[in-house]
Amino acid sequence: MSDLPPESAQLEPLIGTWKGQGHGDYPTIESFDYLEEVSFSTIPTKPFLVYTQKTRHAGTGAPLHTEAGYVRSVAPGRVELTIAQPTGIVEVHSGTIEDGVFAFVSDRVVTTPTAVDVSACTRTITVTADVLSYVFAMEAVGEPLTKHLTARLGRV
Amino acid sequence: MSDLPPESAQLEPLIGTWKGQGHGDYPTIESFDYLEEVSFSTIPTKPFLVYTQKTRHAGTGAPLHTEAGYVRSVAPGRVELTIAQPTGIVEVHSGTIEDGVFAFVSDRVVTTPTAVDVSACTRTITVTADVLSYVFAMEAVGEPLTKHLTARLGRV
Repeated sequence: MSDLPPESAQLEPLIGTWKGQGHGDYPTIESFDYLEEVSFSTIPTKPFLVYTQKTRHAGTGAPLHTEAGYVRSVAPGRVELTIAQPTGIVEVHSGTIEDGVFAFVSDRVVTTPTAVDVSACTRTITVTADVLSYVFAMEAVGEPLTKHLTARLGRV
Repeated sequence: MSDLPPESAQLEPLIGTWKGQGHGDYPTIESFDYLEEVSFSTIPTKPFLVYTQKTRHAGTGAPLHTEAGYVRSVAPGRVELTIAQPTGIVEVHSGTIEDGVFAFVSDRVVTTPTAVDVSACTRTITVTADVLSYVFAMEAVGEPLTKHLTARLGRV
């Protein structure tokens, strides 16, 4: 049992710290590999999880990306996700949960004046007892919705 | 000297952990007092600060709000801010820095389908060596831009 209120128990499979490796590509960039650490944690009585993420270069260990946000339980099988990125991008998503798959589709992606143009994205997270994997696709810089990141992380 | 790259040194005054007390009111709610802890931290070589925040009820200590995001240095005297809230709200801001005052005005506030309607906000943070104070105003639920939160925090 976690600190989640009972009506938000559907978020429990995500709770924990997850580490592993990912791969990024996109039509406009060179592909790359990265190391990643993800955490989903609770705040007692609150119907959401705190999400944090950090990646490092697979070769040099240099910090690459980081982002933070919240997964919020809104109804059985229904979730919402908010994310802020230091690159000037924020996302709000509506999502579903089914058979361990959290499937988020952006309602809106909004950027600061100096950020790269990202107009939509999807985040599909599949979680079992010990493995969290995800696919991140985005519509950006004139490209249609295209897979950008995939990763497979193990429970720490 | 911090881990910030030289061109982002204007963010240095914010770096640290800050604790203190705040007060909230709005035309549509009862006023309330809260305890708050704020952190602005660096990631080596990155031109931004990681922002996290938590508040608790001043009387009971129960967790109230939390949010997270990033302050990004974009040019001398110019900053951007991204924020995600677990209540289904995200914000992107453009801002200025002058005489220790970080003045952010939202470019966009976007909400998930189930969130409270917030359409704009300002965040004005004043920082000296030992005190960080802020005023948060928002345009929400049909009200014009109106002060909602004020707090005064000391460096931990």
